[in-house]
Amino acid sequence: MMNRRVVLASRPAGEAVLDNFRLETVELPALQDGQVLVRNHWLSLDPYMRMRMNEGKSYAAPQALGAPMVGGTAGEVVASRHERFKPGDKVVGGGGWQEYAVFDAGPPGVLRKVDDAVIPLSAYLGAVGMPGVTAWMGLTQIIQPKAGETVVVSAASGAVGSAVGQLAKARGCRAVGIAGGGDKCAYVMETLGFDACIDHKAHREFDALAAALDEAAPQGVDGNFENVGGMILDVVMTRMNAFGRIALCGMISGYDGAPIPMARPALLLTQRLKLQGFIVSEHMALWPEALKELGGLVAGGKLKYRESIASGLDAAPEAFLGLLRGRNFGKQLVKLV
Amino acid sequence: MMNRRVVLASRPAGEAVLDNFRLETVELPALQDGQVLVRNHWLSLDPYMRMRMNEGKSYAAPQALGAPMVGGTAGEVVASRHERFKPGDKVVGGGGWQEYAVFDAGPPGVLRKVDDAVIPLSAYLGAVGMPGVTAWMGLTQIIQPKAGETVVVSAASGAVGSAVGQLAKARGCRAVGIAGGGDKCAYVMETLGFDACIDHKAHREFDALAAALDEAAPQGVDGNFENVGGMILDVVMTRMNAFGRIALCGMISGYDGAPIPMARPALLLTQRLKLQGFIVSEHMALWPEALKELGGLVAGGKLKYRESIASGLDAAPEAFLGLLRGRNFGKQLVKLV
Repeated sequence: MMNRRVVLASRPAGEAVLDNFRLETVELPALQDGQVLVRNHWLSLDPYMRMRMNEGKSYAAPQALGAPMVGGTAGEVVASRHERFKPGDKVVGGGGWQEYAVFDAGPPGVLRKVDDAVIPLSAYLGAVGMPGVTAWMGLTQIIQPKAGETVVVSAASGAVGSAVGQLAKARGCRAVGIAGGGDKCAYVMETLGFDACIDHKAHREFDALAAALDEAAPQGVDGNFENVGGMILDVVMTRMNAFGRIALCGMISGYDGAPIPMARPALLLTQRLKLQGFIVSEHMALWPEALKELGGLVAGGKLKYRESIASGLDAAPEAFLGLLRGRNFGKQLVKLV
Repeated sequence: MMNRRVVLASRPAGEAVLDNFRLETVELPALQDGQVLVRNHWLSLDPYMRMRMNEGKSYAAPQALGAPMVGGTAGEVVASRHERFKPGDKVVGGGGWQEYAVFDAGPPGVLRKVDDAVIPLSAYLGAVGMPGVTAWMGLTQIIQPKAGETVVVSAASGAVGSAVGQLAKARGCRAVGIAGGGDKCAYVMETLGFDACIDHKAHREFDALAAALDEAAPQGVDGNFENVGGMILDVVMTRMNAFGRIALCGMISGYDGAPIPMARPALLLTQRLKLQGFIVSEHMALWPEALKELGGLVAGGKLKYRESIASGLDAAPEAFLGLLRGRNFGKQLVKLV
């Protein structure tokens, strides 16, 4: 049985380009005891993948050259030699950029059965999956917002950002988004219910963005959920109140090349800020509590999300590059089935 | 009765200079009910004072122009209209750069009686005072070191840094200092008992300092107690292990002028670091526990410190400028009596 997959052909020099990827067809190995064969229905595309395409020190080993791109997937079991799984089960795991994936299903967390009766399968890659738990963890464990505080989140219309703001609203906070484009900002405010959203494409200079933030967050900023870094982080830092918290989730603005400095680190001292970088996959103990809240909110229609869907594995590289350039609108997925 | 004092004459434009200070003689006001008159024996000089000479957003209101420079003092009560204090009491408080100070002694913490039978009065401005508690708090509350971990501290021979390393050693850590000069490094290692000390004046380039740190901290850095900022912080960050903690206590390198950027903030994410700025005076609840440990260690000769002593109020501005340029060696004091 043949399998089509996208592998990392070369590491990007600066911006990632299509030539960094290669589509190939390989024979699937025979299933061993304890293994499960899954047909991937949905492939999740996430900014962290860009960081893993680089060499160098980071939280995960770099993506290996010639190996399938790593990534979260949701799909259906087609063959199983593991007692906990049977054909037809809907499952979520890290199946990578390929049509089929073979899982060693023994270790807990590698492959998780999910129920798609109420919650759509794709949501397990978004609001009720890694991005949702990322939002939940950064907000509840690092920012720890109190009612009445102001929480700012960049990339606010994305899979993580949209959950951050809605969870902050549910905790009685003022939620302020930063997103790229008027349509995204309208969605963030009107559909997701944020109190304000700043279009950073309409405020490209430091002072203009800062003035917009003053208007959107008149009481200053108590919590910042950072997905972007660079100038956006620099501006938000100048508006942070004493004892503010910064959950550092991503710095997509710096993934392509030279490190982007932080302009005014002394604010961390003078405002007595707490800043913490985190990776959600290292805190698996928190997932059940997070997924319980997220699943309940999605099932009840209280946590809204939006998906950008590309069709077919061949479309994955282009969709991923679009995500890095902010062309997606909500959670970026690839529909394989 | 006349009082001599040093006031802030003008705000520094860049480096602070002698002209920013003015010595003046004024009449002491008559004591009111609840007030205590203290003759200052010792004046503490600390880097944070430089930050308060600037205008602008910081944790404390800027030092007022024309008012006596703010600062910690240790001295003796000479007159009291408060029932808790009587002439002859040894006391510690924020008496400022002047020979006499009048305290409204009612609010707790404003004026604290101390016992100088075993611990010298001056130590209450150093190892058993604000600098010692600063070291204790950043280390135990933010860095939270585990035995076997490596803790790095900059300005290691100073009042705060010397306590950080010794407290870290007492907790089973490898203590690595960074200080300016071979004599300071020898003292840090031989007298204070740090495992290693790097002379940053002998390693002025990023790569040289990083190589020295690799040698001094072969297992990487788990905790960084930051007093300096700038390139020293940038270098230490590149050597931090996953889940490292940075207690941000001071950024003396940036007090004089334009903000100094942080070169590689993405390390905070990729290494999942926690960084927290703090001001010890905002955490008074921790002082009793800290002072208990520090006082016991000093009384038992287990916590060593060194003092640089300037003589007479007139010498305070020059001694302070020397402190900012690293010319002090240990806790900088002015002896008034």
